[in-house]
Order: sequence, then C-alpha cells, then structure tokens
Amino acid sequence: MKIATPIRPGEATAAVSSILANLKGPADLRGLEEAQLNDLAAEIRETIIRTVARTGGHLGSSLGVVEIAIALHRLLDSPTDRIVWDTGHQAYAHKLLTGRLERFDTLRQIDGIGGFPRRSESEHDVFDGGHAGTGLSIAEGLATARDVRGSNERIAVVVGDAALMSGLSLEARNDIGHRRTSMLIVLNDNEMSISPTVGAFSKYLSKIKLSHAWQTSKTAYDRLVEKVPILGPTMLEWSQRLRRSVVNLASPGQLFEDLGITYIGVVPGHDLHALLQTFSRVFELPGPVLVHVRTQKGRGYRPAETDQVSFHGAALPPMDLAPRADRYDGTPGAPPAIPPGSPHGAGSNGDPVAPAIPASAPAKNPNYTSVFVAELIELARTDRRIVALTAGMPTGTGLAKFHEAYPDRFIDVGIAEQHAVTLATGLAIGGMRPVVAIYSTFLQRAFDQVVHDVCQNDAPVLLGVDRAGLVGEDGTSHQGMFTVAAQRQLPFLVVASPKDEQELRSLVHTAMAQEHPFAIHYPRDAGFGLPSVEPQVLPVGQAELLREGRDIVLVGFGPIVARGLEAAEALEREGWSVGVVNARFAKPLDRDLLVGQARRARLVVTLEESALAGGFGSGVLEAIEEARFADPALRDVAVHRIGIPEGRFVDHGAVSDLRRALRLDAAGIEVQVREAAEAAGIRPSIPTPIHEAARAS
Amino acid sequence: MKIATPIRPGEATAAVSSILANLKGPADLRGLEEAQLNDLAAEIRETIIRTVARTGGHLGSSLGVVEIAIALHRLLDSPTDRIVWDTGHQAYAHKLLTGRLERFDTLRQIDGIGGFPRRSESEHDVFDGGHAGTGLSIAEGLATARDVRGSNERIAVVVGDAALMSGLSLEARNDIGHRRTSMLIVLNDNEMSISPTVGAFSKYLSKIKLSHAWQTSKTAYDRLVEKVPILGPTMLEWSQRLRRSVVNLASPGQLFEDLGITYIGVVPGHDLHALLQTFSRVFELPGPVLVHVRTQKGRGYRPAETDQVSFHGAALPPMDLAPRADRYDGTPGAPPAIPPGSPHGAGSNGDPVAPAIPASAPAKNPNYTSVFVAELIELARTDRRIVALTAGMPTGTGLAKFHEAYPDRFIDVGIAEQHAVTLATGLAIGGMRPVVAIYSTFLQRAFDQVVHDVCQNDAPVLLGVDRAGLVGEDGTSHQGMFTVAAQRQLPFLVVASPKDEQELRSLVHTAMAQEHPFAIHYPRDAGFGLPSVEPQVLPVGQAELLREGRDIVLVGFGPIVARGLEAAEALEREGWSVGVVNARFAKPLDRDLLVGQARRARLVVTLEESALAGGFGSGVLEAIEEARFADPALRDVAVHRIGIPEGRFVDHGAVSDLRRALRLDAAGIEVQVREAAEAAGIRPSIPTPIHEAARAS
Repeated sequence: MKIATPIRPGEATAAVSSILANLKGPADLRGLEEAQLNDLAAEIRETIIRTVARTGGHLGSSLGVVEIAIALHRLLDSPTDRIVWDTGHQAYAHKLLTGRLERFDTLRQIDGIGGFPRRSESEHDVFDGGHAGTGLSIAEGLATARDVRGSNERIAVVVGDAALMSGLSLEARNDIGHRRTSMLIVLNDNEMSISPTVGAFSKYLSKIKLSHAWQTSKTAYDRLVEKVPILGPTMLEWSQRLRRSVVNLASPGQLFEDLGITYIGVVPGHDLHALLQTFSRVFELPGPVLVHVRTQKGRGYRPAETDQVSFHGAALPPMDLAPRADRYDGTPGAPPAIPPGSPHGAGSNGDPVAPAIPASAPAKNPNYTSVFVAELIELARTDRRIVALTAGMPTGTGLAKFHEAYPDRFIDVGIAEQHAVTLATGLAIGGMRPVVAIYSTFLQRAFDQVVHDVCQNDAPVLLGVDRAGLVGEDGTSHQGMFTVAAQRQLPFLVVASPKDEQELRSLVHTAMAQEHPFAIHYPRDAGFGLPSVEPQVLPVGQAELLREGRDIVLVGFGPIVARGLEAAEALEREGWSVGVVNARFAKPLDRDLLVGQARRARLVVTLEESALAGGFGSGVLEAIEEARFADPALRDVAVHRIGIPEGRFVDHGAVSDLRRALRLDAAGIEVQVREAAEAAGIRPSIPTPIHEAARAS
Repeated sequence: MKIATPIRPGEATAAVSSILANLKGPADLRGLEEAQLNDLAAEIRETIIRTVARTGGHLGSSLGVVEIAIALHRLLDSPTDRIVWDTGHQAYAHKLLTGRLERFDTLRQIDGIGGFPRRSESEHDVFDGGHAGTGLSIAEGLATARDVRGSNERIAVVVGDAALMSGLSLEARNDIGHRRTSMLIVLNDNEMSISPTVGAFSKYLSKIKLSHAWQTSKTAYDRLVEKVPILGPTMLEWSQRLRRSVVNLASPGQLFEDLGITYIGVVPGHDLHALLQTFSRVFELPGPVLVHVRTQKGRGYRPAETDQVSFHGAALPPMDLAPRADRYDGTPGAPPAIPPGSPHGAGSNGDPVAPAIPASAPAKNPNYTSVFVAELIELARTDRRIVALTAGMPTGTGLAKFHEAYPDRFIDVGIAEQHAVTLATGLAIGGMRPVVAIYSTFLQRAFDQVVHDVCQNDAPVLLGVDRAGLVGEDGTSHQGMFTVAAQRQLPFLVVASPKDEQELRSLVHTAMAQEHPFAIHYPRDAGFGLPSVEPQVLPVGQAELLREGRDIVLVGFGPIVARGLEAAEALEREGWSVGVVNARFAKPLDRDLLVGQARRARLVVTLEESALAGGFGSGVLEAIEEARFADPALRDVAVHRIGIPEGRFVDHGAVSDLRRALRLDAAGIEVQVREAAEAAGIRPSIPTPIHEAARAS
C-alpha cells in the first residue's frame, strides 16, 4: 500500500483499524486483554504514521508515548481523572483513544483537529497548550483544586525530559516537592543514549540510564513484577517495596527525592505490562510520585517493527528537513529518520515537526531562517565577537549551521528562553555581540529578560525573532502575533522586519553596526528567491518608499509588504493611485517619510501580520495623530490598520489558508483596502479606461 | 547621637567613617590588615543603617553581605574582574567600597544614587538589575565572553537563597553545570533557622543547615583552615582537599554536585578570615564552584553587636510596616526588627524595603493593596472557590492577611511568577477561582503564562497587578509601566483599573462575577480615604462619565483620573469646558461612551501612568480613528496621549517627585493639556471673567 498517494478522509483509518475503530472512548480499554492492548498500540502507531505522512506533524514524540497513553487511559477514569500532556504534541495517541479517530485525517488542517490538546475538541483534553513545560504547573493546579474541594480524582501529567529543563517546570518541581501535592508525574525520557538534550540535569538523567542497572533494568524489573503475589502485603507496603527495589536497582533519583518527590524508575516505556503494574500502584502512594519511563522516540516507525505487511513498501517521506538529519530514503525496512542532534528540531518547542508532503515538489527558495543564519555565519568570520544562542531549537532556528562553523561560539541552553536572553545580556556586557534566535511565540517566555536585562542595560543583543507572524499548522499556541506590540514600548530596542530575504541580510548588518538592542522579526516563510544583493548597513529608522500614490498609501512591516505591492497593483488597475512604503522599522518609525507620504494621500493603510491592538499600525497612527496637531490637513487623511484582529487566537491550518481566512493575502488586503477607501468615502483619482472597464464588469 | 533628626548631606557619613572615608577604591582593601577589615565592616554597617533609617531601603540583605563584599573586593580586581550582585539590593556595601560614600546619603532619592547597581554610577557596577534571579545568567555570560575571548578575568556572583528558586536561576544553574563555566557562585543563605523561603529546594538547604555538622561547622572549619600550611600541597590539591573536608563536614551539596557544580559549604558569612581563605582558593578550581555562605539577615542592626558607643540610644525606626512583623521598639539593645515570615517582604523581589521616615506622620489611608486583599477576604468567606497565590511576596501583596484568614486557600510559590500564573490556570480549569497578585514589573516574568496558559485557555484567573504605574525609590527595574500595552492585545483578557480604592472593591466583585481572565491594575499609592461604599458588579467594558465638557475630554485609566479631575477644574477656571471620563477598562473599551464624548468636544486627552507606545491611550486613539470613518466630524477632534513618554526607563525617586518630573501630577497634566489645546489651535469656549483675568495676568 502506497501511502504517498493522497488519501480521502476516513480511508486510511478505516482500512487499518479494528480494535481502535471499535473503541467508543477510553473506558472501553478496561474491557480489553493485555494482548489486545498491544495490538491496539500497533494500530495507533500505524494510524499516526499514516496520517502524519500526509498532514505533517510531530511524529517522534507521539509514537514514543503510545503505551503510556494506553496505560493511563486504562487505569484512570478520564475526564473525571485528568491526564495532562505537557507540550501537547505528544497527544496524538491520546486523541485517538478519546474518540477522534474519524477525524484524525484532518490533523492540523484548517477546521480539522489540532496538533495539540484542545478543550474545544474533547472533554478529555484538559489544557490547550503547545509550549513546553506547562504540564507540571497545570497538573499541580488541578490537584490543588481537588484538595481544596476535597474530591478524590487522580491527576497525571506526562512530561518530556527536555521540557523538564524549562524554568517553569523547575519552579513547579520545586513547589510540588515542597507542598507534596499528590499527583503522578510520568517523565517521558525518550533519548536513546547520551542525551542530546542539553543541561546538567539532562546529564544527570543520562548517568542513571548509562548505569549497569539501567542496561539490565527491564528484565530485572520484570522479574520483580512477576514475583509479586496478587494477595499479600498491602498496596502501600507493596508500592514502597517496589519503589525501593526499583530505585536501588537503577541507582538514581536522589535528586528528586531530595526535592520531595518520590522517584520510581526506570520503567521500560513500551512494556504495557510494566507500565500498568507501576502506574496502578503509584496512585496509592501519598504525595507526588515521578515515574521515570524510558521510551524510544519514533518507536514503531521502522516498518518491520510493528507490521511487516501493512507497511511493506510504504513510501514514507523524509521526516525532517534539517540539514544534518539522516534522511529516510524510502527503502522498505530502512530505519526511521528521526533527526538526531536535537530534541527540539524544526517546528515546535520540544519535538521535530514532520512536514506535510507538498502537492508538487517545487525547488523551494531558501527561507528567512536560513538566510539569517547564513548572514550571521558570514559576519562571524571576521567579527569574532559574534556568539549565537538558541533555546533548544538548533535545527528550527537554523543555528545548527552556525554551530558547525563556529562550535566555540554557539550555545544551546535547552528549553530555557529566559536564560538564553539573560545569558546573551551577560555576553554583551562582556564585550561579545550575542545573537539569540527564538521563535516569536517562545520569546514571550523571555519578555522580562528582554525588558529588564537587555533593554534596561541597553545591551547590544540581536534578537532573531523567528516565526514572526502566522506559523500555520501548529496553531494557536505557536502563531507569532504578540511580540511586536509587547516590544514596541521598550526603551532602546530597535524593532525591525525585512520586506524580503535580501533586506534581512542588510538588517543583520545594520544590527551589528550599532550598539543597542535590536530585534529582527522574520517569518517561517520561504523567501522570494531573489538574486543575491550586497547587504548594506541601513540607517536605523529609515523606511523605504517603494511607490508613490495620491489616493492611498500602504505602509507595511515585514514581508507582508510584497502582498501590499500586489494589492496596490490590482487597485491601480481599478483607477486607484496607491503608494507603498516598506517601513522596515516599527521602532523607531520613519515619521518624516510616513507623514510626508500621508500628506499626499487621503487614506493610509498599515499592514502587519501581528495582533492589531498596540501593534505596528498603532504606532503609525500615533505618529500621524501627533503630526495632525501641526498639520491640520492631515486630519482628512484616514488611517486604517490591517493585521490580526483583536479578540481571538488564530487556529491551525496551512499558512496560506490562514492568510486567506484572515484576508492577509494579497487578494484579502486588496479587498480590505477597498472597503476602507469606501468607508472613508474616497474615490479613485484615475478614471482610466481600465478602471472604467473594471467598474463596468 | 540621634539619627532620627534629619541629617544634611555628607554629615552622617563624615562623622563615623575613618577607614571607609579613606578608601579611594576597592584596590585599597589590599593594603589593610584583617583587623582593619573587620573595623571597616562595622563602619559600613553603621553607614548603611544610618542612611537607610533616613532614606528607606533594603536593609536586611545589604547588612548580611558586608563581609562577603569586602572579601570579594579584596581578592578580586574590580572592574577587570567582575562582581555581579543578584537582586541588586544587596549592593549597598559594594557601593560604599567603590567610591560612593560621599553621595550615599542621596540613596534612592531623585537624582541620587540608586538602590540597585547602576552602570551609569560606577565602572564597578556590572549590571543594572532589580529583579531576582538574573545573576547566574549574567555572570555566566561574562564568563563565557571571557572564555571566547581567551582572557582570564575572574567572575563572581552573589545570589540569595530565595532568588535561586526562580526559574531563570534554575535554568542558569542547569546550563552552568552542563557547560562547567568557571565562575564563583556565592550562595548568600540568610535564613536563620527553618527557612521561610518556600520550595523544596529551600527545604533541602535547610536540611543541610540543621545537621549537626552545620551547627558546629564554624569551629571545625576554623580548625581546618588554621591547620593548612602556607607551603605544602599545591593550590589545587589543597582546594580539593578543602572542598572534600568541608563537604563531608556539612554533609550536603550532592544536588549541586550532581548538576555539575562543585559545592563548598557551609562557610560562616561574617567571618572575614574564613571567607578570604575560601574565596582565594576556589578560584584555583576549574569549572563552576558554589560556596554556600551562611549569613544573618540584618547582621549588625542590633546596636550592641557592632559598636556600643556610636549606637547607644540610636532611635532607629521600625524597619518594616508589614502587619505581622515584629517591630523594633527603639529600646537600645533590642533585637533588630527584620520581618519574619517572608524573604521578600514589602518592596522588592527578594527583600523587605525599609520605608523612609515620613516628614510628619499622618494617619495614612489604606492603600490599594490592602483594600484589594480585604475585599478578597470578604468574598472568600462565601465563595470557597477563591484561592490566593503570591510569588514570594506575601507581605508586599498583602496576601499574608488572606493567608491568616484561609490558610488552606493560600499558596506562596516563592520567587516563581511563571509557575504562580500557570498554577492558577490549572486551579481555574479545576474549578477554582484563583487570584494571583503580582507586581506589574514582576508580571513581565509571566508574560507567556498570561498569554499561553491563562488567555489561550480563557481561564477565569484574576490577576491582581499590584504596583502598577510609578513605584518610586526602587527605580528603573521596578516601575510598573510595560504591562498595559503588553496585555491590551491579549484575547479574552479584561484589563481594568479603578479610579479609587472604592472602585477597586467593585472591580474585584466584577471579576468574580464573570468567567474570563481579568487583570486589575492598581498602584502602590495610598487610597483617597473615601468612605466605604457597597461594592457593585460593574458591566465589563463600561466607562463612567464624571463630568461633561465641550472643549476637552480627559479620559483616564486608573487613579490618574483623580489628577485629571483636578486639572479639569483648574482648566475650567481658565474658561475651558473640560469633561472627564473614568475609563475603568482599557479592554474592552467603552467605545460608545468615548466616541460620544469625543464627538461633543474638540480635543480628547488620554491619561495613564504607563508607557505610551501601544498603551491605553493608543487604544482610545484606535477606537476614535475607526469611528472617524463613519463620522467625519470626528476628524476635527484631536487626540493627545499623556503617559510615560517613549524611549526611556524611569529612574528612582519619590513617586511624587517622579510624577512632577514626568508632568503626571495634576499640575503637570494641566500644563500638558493646555499645551495640547494650544497645539490643536483651540480656544476656551467660556470667556468667563476668571478666564479673562487669567489671560490678563
């Protein structure tokens, strides 16, 4: 069966599922034999792989937790009991177990089911979240609510080893151990050997795993479990004994125990029997219990492992486009192409995203991310002060290439955006020129560090704000839409965005040629494939006039400018005289140019792919309103702001679909501009034949 | 000598200093005998106590680190070597040792020296910072810069035990241990017995200290130090031996060692000899070394301890107005009044602030903080879903009172704003009605948690945004000026601020009567002393028209409305007809009322005590510009925004001084409004005799 062929909704799943298809909800798991549960695991894996091959998504981590999901749902009574999935991309198996098989083929598509838990989809989804490290706090909140209320539901949270390094997780761990909140923490430790997850804590986990006990833990554990009589010591005694045995076996966990959390590990994560035995007993223990589960990322992706027949000949796509990733070449029986080197990879905070197969396979233009990094690498050849930092996303931010070029000037701090930004501040104070590349949405984690550390110290840190604007399939938690407004108010910070990838290169040079904090926002998009132009240092705060117009001036921030140009051309065909300004800088604004252009027109329309309230367009409006005091003629120039409207998060879906829905593509901008012009009561100034024709048609 | 009497600049310091006064810079310390260093410590303490008694400030933590500061400055060669003070309020001794004795009496006053390190003051100040937990990251950045450059300066950072619980610190600890960055971390552990610092990690530190070894460590340590021959083993061997001995002695530190950081402790923090011996040797060790130093908060405040003569009869003021604090009653020889119960206390993130002695002692009106908490306590009597959370500031946020009333529904997570907000989200999802009170400036730490956790999940969390607006003497790092613009763009979140303390009560009721995220911003100020009014549930998004005006409409957000009213009355005396609107909600805005009022006037002036770019006033401008499309007459109504101007942080100084300087007091607003009216070219509509007289004069 070739799955590279597009599959109609329902087809893929219907073909393979038997146990899964008959599952009404997680409660049905309790009627199944252990052997059936193992078959179910295989079905789930098959469904996930099949679907992700087509839709793209987070394959590795979701495949790793199939047995954990089955075990938790069999033992717990969701939704009364609550299961929290930290960094929700682990939740595919959970989604399949909770009634979403039918629609699973719409994964991450517009109006389809989301790639993360969503409360709007199911009562079994506890928390909408896609940022790493939220799980412990959410679970502790649920557990505390239970304790305040005096009810007795059980709370479990599944958290990955990389997410456990985030400051938020570490704060929560500290509090959970202190208050000894009763809950089950499943540490999903999915690194196979020496952990590529960075950080001392990760090394500590690796030490546990490399011990002899770890190597032999599965069989020893099994022997232990087998020996336990069904009747015998009380549950509590049993659990304590189990705990001690396992702890001694694997010689670890003192760190957690020192912090007040009972440690049990290491449990083989694809052994349903072991998981069921362990989880069923830990709920009898008082206080917080951490079960350290060893899983294999991408488990079951090797076709032979699960089902030789169904997968025979399956032309699975490469699962990661990261340059250093080993690619799966499609040969039957070849090993899975889970990228090594980073637990975070290309897409979401904590796991590589497998891209969907494009309808056709065009030669893709280099994206902004790669252009940004290439320029940094070039500059760093001569400027030895440049140090690049990432918060656990070497592949996603493209900095893995910088790492290759300058291993001594590259730092990956793990999922620790706060530390990345403050560390950069220290580097800058120490005379370096640090560059921190972080996705716009994850930079929210480091807002205080940008304000208090970088800006208050006026430190020359370059913030590469990657994935600015719409990011697509990852949905609400990942859209880069709240950073421009948050940053625009910050003293000393320059906030810039290029109209195309060649200008991005110039902005990198510009940032390095000045001595202040500097943020460059660039999108997930591919570039326009422009020919290389020698990058230049731009005057900070200088906009660029792309075309003049007497009726309308479009002022754009970032690559949306190109769509503005398209819209302008279309409008010109209707007789409108439309100017276009590439703002380049949201801060400082080029007030002279903007006001000068506004003065010649009757309508100014701002364009940005970010939240409207307080954003770039508001800055333009502020500037024009101020200028209106000195120049009353400007009062007759209306200002309309186009961007992401207030009051909503933006759901998942292809970026192109989202842009169309939000009317942020060229056609949508054209319509919005026309509506604004009509609302402002202005008419085209060029009654050309073309215009007349358009009107007549 | 009575120090309650106001002291003229220079007088206090000149009278007491001999060694200190003769110190040109830290290098001079190397010419002093150890006995002289001890005398110097006493002089520094005296100067600090004397000054803080008059200016207010962070007494406890600064007194605790006097010997540490002396030891570090004697051994290190600042500013070539770098000494970082985490949560900079520990830095008073450092300031005195680095040439700021002469101006020390201007501490925290406008144009005086700041309460935190400031690079503009001295080349010895490495980093401007007042938020807890930045030190490890900054120091690691400096050390990494050194290593990249290949230079060999030494880096030390002093961090408190409470600050070490913050996610940022924990992230840094993880990275430092992983990369084994060579630096000295001085853990200033200033809790005297069972630590009131919360969190499992803190308990762990307490366990170390309560051990027999801890109790006897000083003498044992001394014996060890004395025994070391000057010639003998190499430095490195010696250090390793020392480390092992001390580690074994105090039976601790495994947690740090597991994480890759060499642990040495516990060292008596007021024993200069021990500190000098230890610090001098740890710099020979490779990689990061943490020296656990036990200090006594407020050390030396008991007059008898340091200098019976000078301090005899000194009438020191109560050092904290926290309701539960034991107050120093002024009796000579009585113990210092360092507040127990919280390491954070009333003012800054990590240390209680001693208030300055007021010129007179008026019966102070209850402040917004206490009104907020009193209302919560009242509501929580009948609403058992209410749970209150603080991030290490039970006294500062007033929630200590809530704790007294409902110990089971109060959570202090320590300095962990991120966790506080996400924990609250979990509580809300679990059916509770959590209330998190956090200072505006510290809420920057939890920006992502507000966006991604609270708002994305539309969770009914009430954010008590305390210290919104200018906070005064704590200066740049503490002004609450970046939260309104950051929050205004967030879906589902209501952003409110009361015009007075009675309306604050109504807003608390309003928040609890709806089911969405809700932020109430209230200032550090005292209330107006208004009589109690029955609180009411206000319609969300409804503004209040306080007075109508034909010329100008002032629209204010928060208690600045009262100053707007004053300004309006003053302007009315000049013939202006001035309306005043209390917006109450920055989001959602009462567009109907605002636009309606604007339509009747010629100038709208917005008032807020927050950053202007994208802030409340921009929201009003956005709304009016939108309305101008349908109602061109509105184009003749100019909008001027008053707030904290762009491009700057706001320095320290009394709030009243700062408001005057920023022209945000009533008189300043009046002037700014008049300027805006003149710029807009409008004239008063009431040519009253008063107005004519004013013009004529």
